[in-house]
Amino acid sequence: MRQSKLFTKTRREAPADEVAKNAQLLVRAGYIHKEMAGVYDFLPLGLLALNKIITIIREEMNAIGGEEVLLSTLQDPEAWKKSGRWDDTVVDIWFKTQLKNGSELGLGNTHEEALTTLMREQIASYKDLPRYVYQFQNKFRNETRAKSGIMRTREFIMKDLYSFSQDETSHTEFYEQAAAAYEKIFERAGIGAKTYRTFASGGSFSKYSHEYQTVCDAGEDTIYVDEAKRIAVNKEVYDDPDVYAATGIDKAGLKEKKAIEVGNIFTLGTRFSEALGLSFKNVAGESKSVFMGSYGIGPARLMGTIVELMSDDKGLVWPASVAPFAVHLVSLGKDGDEITKTADALYDDLIKAGVEVLYDDRDARAGEKFADSDLLGMPKRIVVGKDAVATGEFEVVDRATGAVAKKTRAELLVR
Amino acid sequence: MRQSKLFTKTRREAPADEVAKNAQLLVRAGYIHKEMAGVYDFLPLGLLALNKIITIIREEMNAIGGEEVLLSTLQDPEAWKKSGRWDDTVVDIWFKTQLKNGSELGLGNTHEEALTTLMREQIASYKDLPRYVYQFQNKFRNETRAKSGIMRTREFIMKDLYSFSQDETSHTEFYEQAAAAYEKIFERAGIGAKTYRTFASGGSFSKYSHEYQTVCDAGEDTIYVDEAKRIAVNKEVYDDPDVYAATGIDKAGLKEKKAIEVGNIFTLGTRFSEALGLSFKNVAGESKSVFMGSYGIGPARLMGTIVELMSDDKGLVWPASVAPFAVHLVSLGKDGDEITKTADALYDDLIKAGVEVLYDDRDARAGEKFADSDLLGMPKRIVVGKDAVATGEFEVVDRATGAVAKKTRAELLVR
Repeated sequence: MRQSKLFTKTRREAPADEVAKNAQLLVRAGYIHKEMAGVYDFLPLGLLALNKIITIIREEMNAIGGEEVLLSTLQDPEAWKKSGRWDDTVVDIWFKTQLKNGSELGLGNTHEEALTTLMREQIASYKDLPRYVYQFQNKFRNETRAKSGIMRTREFIMKDLYSFSQDETSHTEFYEQAAAAYEKIFERAGIGAKTYRTFASGGSFSKYSHEYQTVCDAGEDTIYVDEAKRIAVNKEVYDDPDVYAATGIDKAGLKEKKAIEVGNIFTLGTRFSEALGLSFKNVAGESKSVFMGSYGIGPARLMGTIVELMSDDKGLVWPASVAPFAVHLVSLGKDGDEITKTADALYDDLIKAGVEVLYDDRDARAGEKFADSDLLGMPKRIVVGKDAVATGEFEVVDRATGAVAKKTRAELLVR
Repeated sequence: MRQSKLFTKTRREAPADEVAKNAQLLVRAGYIHKEMAGVYDFLPLGLLALNKIITIIREEMNAIGGEEVLLSTLQDPEAWKKSGRWDDTVVDIWFKTQLKNGSELGLGNTHEEALTTLMREQIASYKDLPRYVYQFQNKFRNETRAKSGIMRTREFIMKDLYSFSQDETSHTEFYEQAAAAYEKIFERAGIGAKTYRTFASGGSFSKYSHEYQTVCDAGEDTIYVDEAKRIAVNKEVYDDPDVYAATGIDKAGLKEKKAIEVGNIFTLGTRFSEALGLSFKNVAGESKSVFMGSYGIGPARLMGTIVELMSDDKGLVWPASVAPFAVHLVSLGKDGDEITKTADALYDDLIKAGVEVLYDDRDARAGEKFADSDLLGMPKRIVVGKDAVATGEFEVVDRATGAVAKKTRAELLVR
């Protein structure tokens, strides 16, 4: 798109009230807008990046047999009372509201209750299992503090998948497929090398769960990493000897790191199916509770993690898989001159070739354009100045490495 | 996709508490699930159809220069107090909630306040205008009654676009472009012929607004239609002589119809920019309030309207542009027989050819499969039975007309 049409502007300084690097940079670059503490709007470039992440996750969920749905934010208390999670003393991050007749409603902070209830109409026999159902849906959590930018917010899109299996054996098989899909997602999003499958406490559901933790100083969690085995242990269970017995990890060799939880996978067992009456008839005709799991990733937290890890002192640095545009085409021309004509023509050719291009066609100084280009962080910058017109070769700058190459138009159009 | 993997089942009878035809059929076909009165979940087939509608709308909004964002549900009261719309006696459909510190928040029922506030950082000069910003975002409205299925719900995705112009002249130019885009959307969604641009009251913003009303007995609105001019007048302003003076419509020739409001476009003028301080410097260097408009369409209401208009006594009938799948491939084979092999091979070929296919590969009776296929409503049904194996010709049934054709595999694979 032409940058002259983009409604967002960059700013030199971050707002004083933003303490997290991800929010400082994303606000400065015009990717997000702070609506209030812990609540952000996604502006055009931010939404493009978020949607790239969502697409990666969707593709990997579909690849393991996930079926996409969209459940509601407004939640009837009934199912939550059955599961014991309606009370504010049990779940302390509820936002609640009321119908006009005074009945209380909740704003969904997760969807085990709603989906388990819904699946009672869809699962009757072992022939109806397994099922894997997921959504990208807004969650609401009444966090007391919100200081981590877009990594911990009061309102956020979450990908939550729930698995419904006959028994623990078939559950475990899918659980490992989901784990492999999560690794692909983090790899594709550019943070695979720093992300560790991490043993964590299972909460009320099972003894352990797994988190995906990305090593980063901005993280709120502390983990202990076995780099050779590419596995880690969350501080919560670091002192539990059973973890080491179960995994063969040598506690002595672990290194303490700060990390960001970018995903988690839980074995729920029959915790919700029993409470909410989701059962099926097995091959022998006996009634059994469905064995469940849940699998979460917050796309915006993933986006914030990428910013925390990859940005530099000039601004954002996006991996190609997540960048709003693959190329930032920067014209140094003035209205109607040869440089502008060359840049316009190259823009048209790139679009025709299917390249996603942000075209800086604004009437602005070169220094301002380069600074903005660094701040916005597209993977490649193509510069069109006097030299390009004279030689037919364009300067191509790699945002991550700073490496400069010269390429002809034909070379730029090869995909 | 293979229907044996689809987790939703059809049901013969609609739930007793569903009075609207659209909800009755969509629930029976497994497209939606009722979470509570006025709140529905979208199941896989329903979400596919909804996303087809969203894609049509997005393409037409992008074509007129719209830039997509995603604003928040949680709303700080401050801006709403400035515009005078926070009070429950002024806006009677608020859902409100609270932060832990007791501060009140609203759940957005529209986004003039939030976006106008946000744009103060982005608009300073006439050079920054015009701007057209839109989103697909969940709205929350505390409706007292909710009896129209997915056409009037307490929680629903809305496409809302807001225009920011220098003055009324440039606003009006865009307003007419938006009107043309709306007509394209309704045309593409298959309801163009029954949809009328309709004069309605402007509410607090301007003397008149325009609604898009689709003639349908299930509608909650009453309009008066001039069929020759393809224009209508809402009952609200039917007795206002100014309407006829302004439009040249002859009141005597109008026909009364029930209709569903599928979209609306409003001239807001400076109602919000003045209240919230969104101004710009014009060419002469004078400070002026930005001239605004708003443009809404609810994709789920549009989906419900299509169901109300096009379904028949056998079930749903989707236009090709909105159908979850273009083709319903129905195999009458048993495990491992020639029919199944032929159907499997045709399924693979159709997928490779880029056709969106739902493949009924279930072990079920032919009568049940045909009844389900009619209920689900894909535009074309391809039947694979004994005859197809013997002759190499497949029966293709048009869902809307019932017309039957015979086609070879090669003919089916031509796109």
